[in-house]
Amino acid sequence: MDWIQINPQLFSSFPPDSRYLVGVSGGRDSIVLLHCLFDLGYRRLIVCHLNHQLRGHSSAADASFVQGLVAKYNGKIVCQPSRKIVGQALRLPSVRTGKRSAYPTTRVANIDLELGSVDVRARAKRNKISIETAAREARYSFFAGVAKRRRCHTIFLAHHADDLVETFLINLFRGAGATGLAAMREVSTRRIEDVDLTIVRPLLSVWRDQIDSYVRERRLKFREDASNKNLAPLRNRIRRRIIPYLEKTLGRSIRQNIWRTAVIAVEEENWIESQLPNSDTPDLSVRELRALPFALQRRTILKWLRAQNVSEIGFEVIERVRSLLDPATRVAKVNLAQDRHLRRRAGRLFVE
Amino acid sequence: MDWIQINPQLFSSFPPDSRYLVGVSGGRDSIVLLHCLFDLGYRRLIVCHLNHQLRGHSSAADASFVQGLVAKYNGKIVCQPSRKIVGQALRLPSVRTGKRSAYPTTRVANIDLELGSVDVRARAKRNKISIETAAREARYSFFAGVAKRRRCHTIFLAHHADDLVETFLINLFRGAGATGLAAMREVSTRRIEDVDLTIVRPLLSVWRDQIDSYVRERRLKFREDASNKNLAPLRNRIRRRIIPYLEKTLGRSIRQNIWRTAVIAVEEENWIESQLPNSDTPDLSVRELRALPFALQRRTILKWLRAQNVSEIGFEVIERVRSLLDPATRVAKVNLAQDRHLRRRAGRLFVE
Repeated sequence: MDWIQINPQLFSSFPPDSRYLVGVSGGRDSIVLLHCLFDLGYRRLIVCHLNHQLRGHSSAADASFVQGLVAKYNGKIVCQPSRKIVGQALRLPSVRTGKRSAYPTTRVANIDLELGSVDVRARAKRNKISIETAAREARYSFFAGVAKRRRCHTIFLAHHADDLVETFLINLFRGAGATGLAAMREVSTRRIEDVDLTIVRPLLSVWRDQIDSYVRERRLKFREDASNKNLAPLRNRIRRRIIPYLEKTLGRSIRQNIWRTAVIAVEEENWIESQLPNSDTPDLSVRELRALPFALQRRTILKWLRAQNVSEIGFEVIERVRSLLDPATRVAKVNLAQDRHLRRRAGRLFVE
Repeated sequence: MDWIQINPQLFSSFPPDSRYLVGVSGGRDSIVLLHCLFDLGYRRLIVCHLNHQLRGHSSAADASFVQGLVAKYNGKIVCQPSRKIVGQALRLPSVRTGKRSAYPTTRVANIDLELGSVDVRARAKRNKISIETAAREARYSFFAGVAKRRRCHTIFLAHHADDLVETFLINLFRGAGATGLAAMREVSTRRIEDVDLTIVRPLLSVWRDQIDSYVRERRLKFREDASNKNLAPLRNRIRRRIIPYLEKTLGRSIRQNIWRTAVIAVEEENWIESQLPNSDTPDLSVRELRALPFALQRRTILKWLRAQNVSEIGFEVIERVRSLLDPATRVAKVNLAQDRHLRRRAGRLFVE
C-alpha cells in the first residue's frame, strides 16, 4: 500500500492553494491525513489541536508532539508532487522531504498551529453529558472559534471508512433512522456558534488497514493513544467485538457492504434534504407541515430543530413534535434538551 | 397477550367484506394470521397452500392440516366481532366459535382452499438457484396463478416484525442499499407473470413472542416445521445467533430500533419512488437519466429493470448500468441474469 485513494472531485471543490483548517489529534489517522494533504500540495494549513486534559501528562505530550510536527513540516522545502490519475483516484507519490527531487517546482510550506485546551471531564459533569459527547462538543466549538478568528471556514477531518461503518451501526442500533443513518458525509456544513463550518473528510473511503500500511511503509510517527482517547464504550464494542463477530459468523466481509449502503443513504438523504421546504424560519406552519408526506415531515422537523440549535434530537423528539400536527391532540408543548420547549400556538410551531 | 395490534388503516383500505387470498403454510405465523383475519370479520377468504415437496410425508401432512382447518372454519357459525379501539390499534376479541354469543349478527364463513404442489428441489436444480429462492419463486408464481384464476388480486401474508428486522439486516449485510433496505412493506404491489398482486402484511408490527403468546393462550394448533422449512442458512444465523449476540453485547434490545429504522426507510423509499420519472416504458433515455441526481438514477434504473422483469438486480448491476451514462465510456452492454442483456443504442437503454 504505497498510496491512498482520495476522491479527485475534492481537489476541484477545495483547491490546494487555498487555506484550510485540519483537525490533528496526533493519532494515526490525523497524522496520515496531514501527510496526505501535504503530499497532495496543500501547503497553507492551520493545524488545530485541542488538549482534552483527559490523560494528564500524556495529553500534554500529544500537544507537544503536534507542535514538533508542525515545526518539522514548516522547515521543509518541498516539491509540488506529480498527480497521476489511477482509475478514478489519485496515486499519491510519497513526499520528497528536503532533498532535491526530479520535480521542478518547489514551495515553502506555511503550516500554522492553533492549540487549545479544555477540561472535558469538568464540562461533561457540568452539562450532564458523556465524556465522548463533551469531547466532541468541545472540539467543534474549538474548531468554530479558530475558523472565526482566522477567517477560514473549511476544516479537514480524518474520519475513515471504518469510522463511517461504525457510526452507521451505532445509529442503526440506537434507532436513529429519523435523524439519518448517514451521519458522516464526505462534505457537510454545520452551524456552530454563529459559524458555518464546512467539514471535509477526504479519508472517508479509506480503510483502517490501508492507513496502517501507509503509516508502516512511510514509518510515520504518531501518538498511540491520541486518536482513541475519547472512544466511547459503544463504538469500542462495535469495532472490537461486533464487527469481527459478524464477519466470522457470516463468513464474509460485511464492512464493504455496510459502507456502500451508508454511501447510498448519504446520497438519498442529500437529495431528500434538497427537496425540503425552507425551514430557515423562526417558526413552522402546522398546516403546511401536515400536508407533507411522513418522510418529509420528519426531515423538515429535524432540519428546522437543528437550525434552532436544539441538541439531542432523537426519534422520540421528532415523533412527539409530529404528534402536535394531529388536529385532535390537546398537547401543545414538547420538552426539548437543555430546558427548552417547543410550543404550538395559533397554528405555528416555535422553540422557546 | 390476548390481543394483537393491527394497523386500523388496513381495514379501510381492505374492507373485511371483500374477498382476499391468504398464504397459509400451516406454521405458527400463518395460523395466527388466519385466526386474526377471521376474528376481525374477514369471512370471504381463499386459503392458498403450496406443498413444496421438501419434507416428504411431512409436507403432505401440512397440506392435510390446512385442509382440515379450512373445513373447520367453514363449519363455524360465527358472529361479527366487536371492535374496540385501543390506542391506535384494534383490540381483537377472541373468536366465538359456534356458541351463541352476546353479539347479534351472525354470518356463515366462506373460506375456500387452493392447494398446489411443486417439486421445489428440482426447480432449484433446474434453474441453478438456492432452495430458498426456488421456494419463494414457486410460491409467488402459485399465488399469481390463483389470483388470476379466481380474479382476486390481493393476498395477505404472515410476515411479522422479526421477519422485517431479519430481512433488513440481510439486505444490509449483502449491501443491498441501492435496491432498498426496505424490502418488506405493509402494503406493496408486485408484478408476477402478467398479474399485479397486492401483498398485504398485517402482522408486520407484531413481534414473534407476541405471536407465540397468542398461540399459547388460544391453544391454536399449527404444524411445527411448516413455517421454517425454507429458512435459509443466512436468515437462520441472523435469527438464532447474530441478533441474540448483538443484544447481549450491547446490553439492550436493538430489534425495536432496527424495526423503527426500517419503517422510516420504507416511508422514505415510498416517497422517493413517487418522485421518480415514469419508467413504464420499453426503453430509457440516457440524457434524461444523466440529468437526475445519483440517488434518483439508481432508483429509476431499479424500477425500470423490475418493470422489464429482470431478476437478481443487485448493487453491481445498477452501478454497471449507471456507468453506461458516462459519455466517455465505450461499453454499451451489461449482462443481466438469465442470459439477458441491457444495451445502449442511439442514446437509449433497453433490455434484450
